[in-house]
Amino acid sequence: MPRLADHDQRRAQITESARQVIAHDGLGAATFQSVAAEAGISVRLVQYYFGTKRKFLLATHQAVVADAGTRFTRRLGALGKDPAPRDVIRAILAELLPVDAARRQDAVVLNAFHTAALTASDIETEDTLGAPRFLVTTIAEQLRLARAAATPAARRAADLDAELIVASAAGLTQTLLVDASAGGRADELLDRLLDRMV
Amino acid sequence: MPRLADHDQRRAQITESARQVIAHDGLGAATFQSVAAEAGISVRLVQYYFGTKRKFLLATHQAVVADAGTRFTRRLGALGKDPAPRDVIRAILAELLPVDAARRQDAVVLNAFHTAALTASDIETEDTLGAPRFLVTTIAEQLRLARAAATPAARRAADLDAELIVASAAGLTQTLLVDASAGGRADELLDRLLDRMV
Repeated sequence: MPRLADHDQRRAQITESARQVIAHDGLGAATFQSVAAEAGISVRLVQYYFGTKRKFLLATHQAVVADAGTRFTRRLGALGKDPAPRDVIRAILAELLPVDAARRQDAVVLNAFHTAALTASDIETEDTLGAPRFLVTTIAEQLRLARAAATPAARRAADLDAELIVASAAGLTQTLLVDASAGGRADELLDRLLDRMV
Repeated sequence: MPRLADHDQRRAQITESARQVIAHDGLGAATFQSVAAEAGISVRLVQYYFGTKRKFLLATHQAVVADAGTRFTRRLGALGKDPAPRDVIRAILAELLPVDAARRQDAVVLNAFHTAALTASDIETEDTLGAPRFLVTTIAEQLRLARAAATPAARRAADLDAELIVASAAGLTQTLLVDASAGGRADELLDRLLDRMV
């Protein structure tokens, strides 16, 4: 009987293959068959590990979100003790934007889940809301710190600004994915966004 | 032989059906067959009017963009003579956000094209860039007016801010499409965005 670690490794191998299939051909192309072929294993093994298509897709989504979480934690750790709120927010946004091949793949996959949630598919809108809501909460907290926001109005303003900052990052991600000319402006846009919103 | 107006009407009927298929089941579901069935006409007639799948998809995309353009023009016309730049920008953004069923359908269809452009499909990234670039240019112009931006630095700042405003609207559109709780905040978020960016 395989050890637990082998199970985890096998699941990671399968979701990694699913990410590649989705990034290349879209969520509609991610089937037990195509992913088994990409991973070089049998269809039955994929089914054994995930059971239903929905479970298998949600595990793939979760793997992308978990990787992003690991990157955030590493980058925030590199900021040292008591980092400035603006630096924390910048680190989070810089980690989100698709400025290299790995982040680009993640962004394409997350976008595919967003799109699938909007139409008849195995994915529901609620499945995709956890990560963006977490980002809004985290950034709102940093804005309150930066502004020493104590009144209800100031706290409300921080919530709205956090939502706008996350929306801007999501929109810039869309632009960077389709418009190669925008890559050179990514840092400048990020700094400008922080100048206006933090 | 049918008159030109009949041709236009027939093409509009077909792209309207394509929009409904895409909004409901995604771009992958939009085939000559499914759209002919939705329109209640023969597959051959769809082929006759559009020739290739790519031409037919691009005509559908164009129909959505043209409708949005008509709505913009109407709303901008309602602002009267010499409208304030902030009001022009607000009108444009309010018209973009999916706050009713028709705009929601348009946003889902445009999102489907964006997603298809990112993966192997009949749609290329360049196909989807015209409308957002036009929006950035239009809003940058209004920002320059509002700020009487004359120096190269001020003009550059207006360009960046316009790109961030359009990105925010695109990100808010994503949120509004998946998160029903966000609808009640749409106006407040829009005003806050204008307060910070214009």
